[in-house]
Amino acid sequence: MAATDSAKTRLYVDDDLGDGQKVDLSASQAHYLKHVLRLSASDRVVLFNGRDGEWLSRIDAIGRGCGSLEITCQLRAQSEEPDLWLLFAPIKRARLDFLVQKAVELGVSRIMPVTTDRTEVRRLNVERHRTNVIEATEQCERMTLPSFAEPQSLAAILDSFPEDRTLAVCAERGDAPMLGDVLRAPEAAMQRWAILCGPEGGFTERELDALGKLHFISLVSLGPRILRAETAVLSAVTCWQAALGDWRQRPPERDLA
Amino acid sequence: MAATDSAKTRLYVDDDLGDGQKVDLSASQAHYLKHVLRLSASDRVVLFNGRDGEWLSRIDAIGRGCGSLEITCQLRAQSEEPDLWLLFAPIKRARLDFLVQKAVELGVSRIMPVTTDRTEVRRLNVERHRTNVIEATEQCERMTLPSFAEPQSLAAILDSFPEDRTLAVCAERGDAPMLGDVLRAPEAAMQRWAILCGPEGGFTERELDALGKLHFISLVSLGPRILRAETAVLSAVTCWQAALGDWRQRPPERDLA
Repeated sequence: MAATDSAKTRLYVDDDLGDGQKVDLSASQAHYLKHVLRLSASDRVVLFNGRDGEWLSRIDAIGRGCGSLEITCQLRAQSEEPDLWLLFAPIKRARLDFLVQKAVELGVSRIMPVTTDRTEVRRLNVERHRTNVIEATEQCERMTLPSFAEPQSLAAILDSFPEDRTLAVCAERGDAPMLGDVLRAPEAAMQRWAILCGPEGGFTERELDALGKLHFISLVSLGPRILRAETAVLSAVTCWQAALGDWRQRPPERDLA
Repeated sequence: MAATDSAKTRLYVDDDLGDGQKVDLSASQAHYLKHVLRLSASDRVVLFNGRDGEWLSRIDAIGRGCGSLEITCQLRAQSEEPDLWLLFAPIKRARLDFLVQKAVELGVSRIMPVTTDRTEVRRLNVERHRTNVIEATEQCERMTLPSFAEPQSLAAILDSFPEDRTLAVCAERGDAPMLGDVLRAPEAAMQRWAILCGPEGGFTERELDALGKLHFISLVSLGPRILRAETAVLSAVTCWQAALGDWRQRPPERDLA
């Protein structure tokens, strides 16, 4: 992307957004715009905050570690992403970064790390992942920021899991029905959904027993090949979006040229 | 995975496989078994060649850069992966490795790099990607090795494209129907399929014009968010497998304990 194509630069901010409003840049945002993208005063930046839609702004002033933007017009009204929770057992860093980035791109609303008996990675830098979530959200043009929860044990999550949400548990072995079929059953569209992808090596017998006793669980299959954890997550979220999500919508047409 | 869990070690070999047969290890396979997995004589290794099914073997002898295996019994009969070609514009290295690995896991039969007007990466180390394909195939327990073609230009590929195969072209913009819907139309199951995912930045007008003139092209959508190239590939292949592929099958049950 050329440095001059500044209207493609899309920033998440906390501030309220509206006509004529000014928005101060954080030190890291100012650094990114000035030194990474080499933007300067009067260049255009797209802003969103997850509440007020998407707005076009111009750089008013930018210096070392500070700067401000002035909003010129609204580009898109606020819209919501579909309501899909993703629960997954953390994996090693590069693949976990990838998993989180892709979950954002594919439009999940809530990202929930879960430690299971066979989870190898038990410490997560939650702040780093939240930054990762913001960057992925900026890039994929979605309008809301998914939440990234503190890690919890599977037992704790199941204990407090809302009774009115179906948890589709991706199971490698056994004779579970295919996720795509489960999501296309007539009753599926009436339910709220969450997806749980286990660690590589799968759930233990103890965990499968505990899961099997819960009425809000649906064991599902992702086909005959053994998928790595991040692939299973992407495939499961794709199936959900295609069956029950917003895939019938198209990306917004915006002519910023 | 514990080093002693040797029956989970799965190797692709060129040799014919059958009862009592001996298989010589390549230098790199011997190194991998001996020094990476720390296996030794009489440890078990699963073998497949994409033709004769999957076989259990034992290490007969293993030394510095050489070794042999002796086949003990067949574990699975040969089966075929679904017939799906994947065409994609190469991206930068780490994400491309990932894309190729995931395409193998998700069961495509033919991987075809395509250079387009906006393709940024024009040189591919095809041998390195073929090694990558073998490793991914070993890991995901599939029974066939997908082919990895030499890169070709979009024009050259379209020129020689088989008329009896539908090419689903993933288009970010415009009003194409959702891929999942296209693949679930009654006539879709009668067709052979290929998927084409363009470069980031999409196809040029010139390319879209050329594609639009071909009767075997179907423009399709992957929903309202802008997906990175590797995400688009994974989502598109997932949709195809769930609608027309083999996802109703389950992973093989094998008790090697």
